[in-house]
Amino acid sequence: MLVNGQPTRPLMPAPEADAVLVIDQRGLPHQLRWQRVGDVATAITAIRDMWVRGAPLIGVTGAYGLALQARVEASDAALAAAAQALIAARPTAVNLAWAVQRLHRALLPLPVAERAVQAWALAGALADEDVAVNAAIGRHGLALLQAIAARRGRVNVLTHCNAGWLATVDWGTALSPVYQAQAAGLDLHVWVDETRPRNQGASLTAWELGQQGVAHTVVSDNAGGHLMQHGQVDIVIVGCDRVTARGDVCNKIGTYLKALAAHDNGVPFYAAMPLSTLDLALQDGLREIPIEERSAREQTHITGRAANGELVEVQLVPDGSAAANPAFDVTPARLVTGLITERGVVPADEQALRALAA
Amino acid sequence: MLVNGQPTRPLMPAPEADAVLVIDQRGLPHQLRWQRVGDVATAITAIRDMWVRGAPLIGVTGAYGLALQARVEASDAALAAAAQALIAARPTAVNLAWAVQRLHRALLPLPVAERAVQAWALAGALADEDVAVNAAIGRHGLALLQAIAARRGRVNVLTHCNAGWLATVDWGTALSPVYQAQAAGLDLHVWVDETRPRNQGASLTAWELGQQGVAHTVVSDNAGGHLMQHGQVDIVIVGCDRVTARGDVCNKIGTYLKALAAHDNGVPFYAAMPLSTLDLALQDGLREIPIEERSAREQTHITGRAANGELVEVQLVPDGSAAANPAFDVTPARLVTGLITERGVVPADEQALRALAA
Repeated sequence: MLVNGQPTRPLMPAPEADAVLVIDQRGLPHQLRWQRVGDVATAITAIRDMWVRGAPLIGVTGAYGLALQARVEASDAALAAAAQALIAARPTAVNLAWAVQRLHRALLPLPVAERAVQAWALAGALADEDVAVNAAIGRHGLALLQAIAARRGRVNVLTHCNAGWLATVDWGTALSPVYQAQAAGLDLHVWVDETRPRNQGASLTAWELGQQGVAHTVVSDNAGGHLMQHGQVDIVIVGCDRVTARGDVCNKIGTYLKALAAHDNGVPFYAAMPLSTLDLALQDGLREIPIEERSAREQTHITGRAANGELVEVQLVPDGSAAANPAFDVTPARLVTGLITERGVVPADEQALRALAA
Repeated sequence: MLVNGQPTRPLMPAPEADAVLVIDQRGLPHQLRWQRVGDVATAITAIRDMWVRGAPLIGVTGAYGLALQARVEASDAALAAAAQALIAARPTAVNLAWAVQRLHRALLPLPVAERAVQAWALAGALADEDVAVNAAIGRHGLALLQAIAARRGRVNVLTHCNAGWLATVDWGTALSPVYQAQAAGLDLHVWVDETRPRNQGASLTAWELGQQGVAHTVVSDNAGGHLMQHGQVDIVIVGCDRVTARGDVCNKIGTYLKALAAHDNGVPFYAAMPLSTLDLALQDGLREIPIEERSAREQTHITGRAANGELVEVQLVPDGSAAANPAFDVTPARLVTGLITERGVVPADEQALRALAA
């Protein structure tokens, strides 16, 4: 999608195939910084410290990380250790493990000498596949937005966190229908949840939408229920980090509250889900999905742009107050109207999901 | 309650009865600044710009504002104009109008020459009454917490925004039961919603609880649903800015989302309500209560303490992104377990509320 009018992806392979260049998303929306990821250790840092984030993008970054390891040493032992370390960098999203394991399994049968070249090509294929998947999610989601537009005229979408192109290789998941609706000429407006504590909505989603010229309004995470009570939201579309066989959706902390409000107000609630996010081994998301507890400092401090243009970190809570920072929550399938996948829109139930994935 | 170990109130009459001193809550939790409010214009500024906030405290501040007007000119016309301007400073909370009108009505029958002295005394009586009301709310709420403690041991309370002593003359409303439970020796812990966009939870509630030595943890507004899903919240207690005859609760934006989550997880949800907050003229809170839309800048910028100790305002959203800032929402009575009033705990229904207020 566009940055300063130029087509841009948040991860791009270097021409010499010896590194990937990624947008360091910690500087957004105020600074557009690129980082070079040239070895597996840097890839782990990029994932763990959230230079890159978003389930699809960390999956592709993980795959490139393994490919960078293969360039240095491609033995079974070296690849296994690298794969394990990459997967451990973020515990909640299933895509990371899915992408790394898929590449790992594809490399093991190959002669060690061929692995580096093949790994790079396969990581690239994974990136291309992500783009195609997201474009398909966008087409299926577009139909939902067109149906609303036909009834209502303007379509008001509410989204939480960032599941846009910055979270993927291109298009995004939850925002892919929005971008396709923009291209189709629909009258659109997006309510952007700020998404505390890391502010991915205010920092990333608002920036993406602004760069692409989509009308949007940033609101506190507290506001969505009120907006829905007053008919100002036609549809909620969020991303997801893991979906269980029965359709429980694990996504950014606070998603569950928006799903409750949508349910209470008859607003359709969709999660955009690449099939790679579906974890058929799990049933009960609340009991079975590990929820990452991140640093309290993400809650107690925040970085923004001071009047002089510098990025400054400020403390928000009193000295001595504790803070907790659970990063994800689980929305039970009963609150999910449907899942927008690359193969179509399906209800959040086991029969439909197993049939789709078959 | 305590500040640096000393009993303190957020509003105190000056000894010469020519001003009130208020804590400028915009500097908290990092700076404890006092402001002198010596005329009605400054009282209006203090209310509108939120040097003081919290429905009970702005009511008392409004009353003192009218008393300060009476010192300068106490004619019917001057008092009426001052009362109208004070009430217009914040539109949502009913206490402000209630307190100002009550004082205004009490002054009108008096000779003009006596009004200034009487107004000061009556404003003081209103402040004393607030303290007594809040202490009573605390005693009734304490019984709820003792019942939980008897079953569970430690009591985990979740609160939203600040309805503590900083929002009142003393004790607070929602936090009054917490302070009384602390005094009674209960094992207590409070989850403090950050409460974006103005961060009254992270800035004020956390500071109050810390000064008083109550165990607490600040969380993002997004986290409460997750905590309730995992059994980590025993009771939700919030304040309220206006309650309708049928028990709809208007309170800080985001309260409704917590009420939905409490309902979905079987967690009792209470609003602490001085009877002055009850507006029997209204039925349907969603349709009838005006919701204040505050400046977008409260959402796009935030002030915190930089590493060098200075308070710095930083921008959080991209240039060019719009923001909206509805300040309150309405929680329908069906989601409210009960209202904790100075006359006891009652269900959120019209019969009970009318009987209580009679």
